[in-house]
Amino acid sequence: MILGNREVINRLSNYRKVLLTMQSLGFRKVFSDNLADALGLTAAQVRKDLSSFKLSGNKKGGYQVEVLIDRLNVILGKNEEQKIIIIGCGKLGSALMGYNRFIREGIKVVAGFDTDPEIINPDGSISIYGLEHLPDYVVREQVKVAVMTVPESAAQHVFQILLESDIRGVLNFTPAQLKDTENCVVHNVNLALEIENLFYFAKSQESGDQVDPNNE
Amino acid sequence: MILGNREVINRLSNYRKVLLTMQSLGFRKVFSDNLADALGLTAAQVRKDLSSFKLSGNKKGGYQVEVLIDRLNVILGKNEEQKIIIIGCGKLGSALMGYNRFIREGIKVVAGFDTDPEIINPDGSISIYGLEHLPDYVVREQVKVAVMTVPESAAQHVFQILLESDIRGVLNFTPAQLKDTENCVVHNVNLALEIENLFYFAKSQESGDQVDPNNE
Repeated sequence: MILGNREVINRLSNYRKVLLTMQSLGFRKVFSDNLADALGLTAAQVRKDLSSFKLSGNKKGGYQVEVLIDRLNVILGKNEEQKIIIIGCGKLGSALMGYNRFIREGIKVVAGFDTDPEIINPDGSISIYGLEHLPDYVVREQVKVAVMTVPESAAQHVFQILLESDIRGVLNFTPAQLKDTENCVVHNVNLALEIENLFYFAKSQESGDQVDPNNE
Repeated sequence: MILGNREVINRLSNYRKVLLTMQSLGFRKVFSDNLADALGLTAAQVRKDLSSFKLSGNKKGGYQVEVLIDRLNVILGKNEEQKIIIIGCGKLGSALMGYNRFIREGIKVVAGFDTDPEIINPDGSISIYGLEHLPDYVVREQVKVAVMTVPESAAQHVFQILLESDIRGVLNFTPAQLKDTENCVVHNVNLALEIENLFYFAKSQESGDQVDPNNE
């Protein structure tokens, strides 16, 4: 398993987005303070993140915006098309097939898979195949990342198919708590947990309760 | 702003889920080791989390499952119906209206709001209103948490309406980076970032690159 750190990578993605905006405004140089301010971080954190990927600036001149974007593109794989497939083409899967934010970020849904491919046709622009065609498709199209929006009962079965097809990253919307394997990273998305969390804060705000801040 | 900690609250939600499963299997006692094993944590972490909410067990007897569930229900607000509204009833908003996982977790979508309420009818079971009816509705129904699935261009405007309507928690799917206010907690959901993150790991795995593990 990779000794990776999701938080760092997420920050790199955010740096890249700020840099793209700066570039579009004509900026050519950027200081760690600029990135820190834009993202609510400390400048030291920004420098630490960038230097851990051997991206260095200097005190006087800061970082070159264009150079930094190029390097971040390579690190984050944004210099290539990011092709994903969606397994389970119900309402949520279909919604994600046309998700603007994916398109905007250069993420392309190349195909959907479902046990009932005939009855589904979200908007016709993305082909839906039967699950049995998944392994061949993944190899042929060199797909590395899949989104799972199948029912919980199908989660383990589908995950197994993905692992055997050499998928390297899975975004899992099912309630099944899937675990990383040696060759595949899983992000479990739990929107219900996010909502519950908001209710906790809404409630504690009204009652004046707080989480003990010493418990981190 | 509340000195809260999302990670701790998420763990409490997860403890609760494990405890409910244990209860359904007839267990009456649980030890911190059990919860730790089920969730891939250390027993010390479990004890620390629980004791920070004044939930204590003892070395010999552990915790009472039923008592712990009752207390967690109160802390997490699961002893009341968790009513949410969805603003923006496009594909993603509509998909979330029928999201099984919300229903399963006792989260009820009570209404949708959209600028074009007439043309939308996801499955007819949840009423969709014009945005102008939101403030009155929220007060009348005492809604505290809202999900934003509007286009980016509408994000700030809708957020302002939510704040003025005394909404306390917002799950934001728009690309706008909304910030917590004194009375409202925002969780920004960025599925594109999750995907990008998976591509980074997929790529670094192939090339053998790693994030510097010293950078946390």
